[in-house]
Amino acid sequence: MRLFAKTIDVHAHCDLPCGVYDPAQARIEAESIKGIIGKLADNDDPDFRTRAILIKEQRSELVKHHLWVLWTDYFKPPHFEKYPQLHQLVNEATKLAGATGTKGSLDEAKADELLAKIDEIAKIFWETKQS
Amino acid sequence: MRLFAKTIDVHAHCDLPCGVYDPAQARIEAESIKGIIGKLADNDDPDFRTRAILIKEQRSELVKHHLWVLWTDYFKPPHFEKYPQLHQLVNEATKLAGATGTKGSLDEAKADELLAKIDEIAKIFWETKQS
Amino acid sequence: MRLFAKTIDVHAHCDLPCGVYDPAQARIEAESIKGIIGKLADNDDPDFRTRAILIKEQRSELVKHHLWVLWTDYFKPPHFEKYPQLHQLVNEATKLAGATGTKGSLDEAKADELLAKIDEIAKIFWETKQS
Amino acid sequence: MRLFAKTIDVHAHCDLPCGVYDPAQARIEAESIKGIIGKLADNDDPDFRTRAILIKEQRSELVKHHLWVLWTDYFKPPHFEKYPQLHQLVNEATKLAGATGTKGSLDEAKADELLAKIDEIAKIFWETKQS
Amino acid sequence: MRLFAKTIDVHAHCDLPCGVYDPAQARIEAESIKGIIGKLADNDDPDFRTRAILIKEQRSELVKHHLWVLWTDYFKPPHFEKYPQLHQLVNEATKLAGATGTKGSLDEAKADELLAKIDEIAKIFWETKQS
Amino acid sequence: MRLFAKTIDVHAHCDLPCGVYDPAQARIEAESIKGIIGKLADNDDPDFRTRAILIKEQRSELVKHHLWVLWTDYFKPPHFEKYPQLHQLVNEATKLAGATGTKGSLDEAKADELLAKIDEIAKIFWETKQS
Ligand code: NI
Ligand code: NI
Ligand code: NI
Ligand code: NI
Ligand code: NI
Ligand code: NI
Repeated sequence: MRLFAKTIDVHAHCDLPCGVYDPAQARIEAESIKGIIGKLADNDDPDFRTRAILIKEQRSELVKHHLWVLWTDYFKPPHFEKYPQLHQLVNEATKLAGATGTKGSLDEAKADELLAKIDEIAKIFWETKQS
Repeated sequence: MRLFAKTIDVHAHCDLPCGVYDPAQARIEAESIKGIIGKLADNDDPDFRTRAILIKEQRSELVKHHLWVLWTDYFKPPHFEKYPQLHQLVNEATKLAGATGTKGSLDEAKADELLAKIDEIAKIFWETKQS
Repeated sequence: MRLFAKTIDVHAHCDLPCGVYDPAQARIEAESIKGIIGKLADNDDPDFRTRAILIKEQRSELVKHHLWVLWTDYFKPPHFEKYPQLHQLVNEATKLAGATGTKGSLDEAKADELLAKIDEIAKIFWETKQS
Repeated sequence: MRLFAKTIDVHAHCDLPCGVYDPAQARIEAESIKGIIGKLADNDDPDFRTRAILIKEQRSELVKHHLWVLWTDYFKPPHFEKYPQLHQLVNEATKLAGATGTKGSLDEAKADELLAKIDEIAKIFWETKQS
Repeated sequence: MRLFAKTIDVHAHCDLPCGVYDPAQARIEAESIKGIIGKLADNDDPDFRTRAILIKEQRSELVKHHLWVLWTDYFKPPHFEKYPQLHQLVNEATKLAGATGTKGSLDEAKADELLAKIDEIAKIFWETKQS
Repeated sequence: MRLFAKTIDVHAHCDLPCGVYDPAQARIEAESIKGIIGKLADNDDPDFRTRAILIKEQRSELVKHHLWVLWTDYFKPPHFEKYPQLHQLVNEATKLAGATGTKGSLDEAKADELLAKIDEIAKIFWETKQS
């Protein structure tokens, strides 16, 4: 359970920029993908599967979009200097939400890999916010 | 500063449904609106203002959408019975993101009212998750 | 057959607001959903079914959107006072276009229920326009 | 005032196709454009004008889209044979919703011209539905 | 192989208008459709087929959109006078990307027909640019 | 003038994947941005400027999207090994289409810088297609 009062310090993104970003937006969609894959495992109804795959496709695209926004709009040259692995990390994370990842696969392990990569990016993100 | 390890229990929404919702999605966009209004106050460049108003319009629409999803997809009849104010609360919150709210206004107080309404909805949301 | 000259007094919606709304926009999409379900009943081709379910998903989302716009942008506090059932009515109608309604179901009866709810909302809408 | 019971025989479009079309969808948006232009005439607030022009742009694009759908998806070769002016009529109508029409202009006469063209198309549409 | 330096004189479209159009945008999507149909022929996995049909639907819609933009925004009355077949040509091309064309069919011949029509339109387009 | 017969070997992208990509898609939108900036320089009408800035915002977002697709979906680890500057190059190009680039600026030089970066990416792209 999440304590409400403590955790509503969420962050957003737009390209004004408003100056507010949060890797949680990517993670929200990745959690949803994991939930969808779980429901697919239990269900042989082809019409349900169609809906689930369609929605999984959309949610995976949203993961890619939110990560691209962080990579282009939030992270600046000093971040890439300090974290030389950051380019590759975001590239791998976005690939994990694509055809070779959660779009093309029904394997829950892919969703877990994606979540783990997003957490690595988030860890760097929050370190840069502290300094 | 947000402690990373503790707060990444975010929640999402889709209409499969994946079973994951989070009022944070609406709040993220409302925080962005507040940031945009703050930047508008300091800036007389008409071209910048055009961009800011355009983005504020989009972010306000996203607030409305995220709240509508909670109202229709997450909340069920027993919730509306237990919280008889819930219909009106969500209705007022979505109006606060519309023409008489953050779309039509540049007043930071409107953004604060919207944030407060979202927090009221979030409080109810998390109570229903606990029970 | 519809007599052309008599019925082209249609109404729209945007959030300027332009002041023009019409429940017909929701009904149009619900009629389409009913047509799609009818075509699904007669067709076992899995590729056709994929297309139909995909389009039914989009049309159902449009129904929800058009009803949400009426609920938030058109209806005002005096309407909710005069029609105390209005919140629940719109909530039920939007649920009927979601996972437990026309998105998740291939039952034509669901489309009929949705159409009936939209007609109830439209009846109230036109009463409020007359007074 | 529109008599509710008589007029809810609206029609929709999708590319399944569901077999339901209605020129009212284009007219709804054109009415909205006319309303927006009316509100622009009375208002010098640059921030309001930005919102109005943005929304007018979107509504004009919707007019174009709804007319394109009729032209491509509803009208068939026999219709174009019977109504040799139909290609040009739809082309002119869509141009009237573009840069040289309601997108680029604030002249209410442009909206009226657009509405008149849509009505010409609608007249043909309903004739083809009768035969 | 395309020689890079020679061919990057591409053209775009918007409704400002920026004055830049290019039939290549429609062809790009039609090539993609042909590729998707090729991959469908080799694959019986129903979940892959769902993804492919969903994406084919989107790409077909993009073909229609890009052709509609040329027809309404680029081509002017003198073009339609000089090329009296142009209306019908674009109409047939857009139908070939719809329910009776690449949306509803898995036949590669449909994609080839669509590509051929786009090339006919492109030929006229480039002739009008020269004169 | 572009010789029609020689250059229609365009390429597309989707995440099936269809296997077809082309940096021309990004360049098309960047050319459009440059055209828009040129028209803004000659025009003081605030309503025209609103339209132009709105469309420039959309076209810039499309540039970012097309480049992100290349970076995530087309380029593979061996490409990043062979071209160690590729991550930074794409990152800089997408930033040039954002708030510090063509979204936030009316300077034609920004559009030229963006075009030059896209050409650098395209050069690498076509080299990888040859090998
Ligand atoms: Ni922002
Ligand atoms: Ni969900
Ligand atoms: Ni309106
Ligand atoms: Ni339809
Ligand atoms: Ni353009
Ligand atoms: Ni592709």
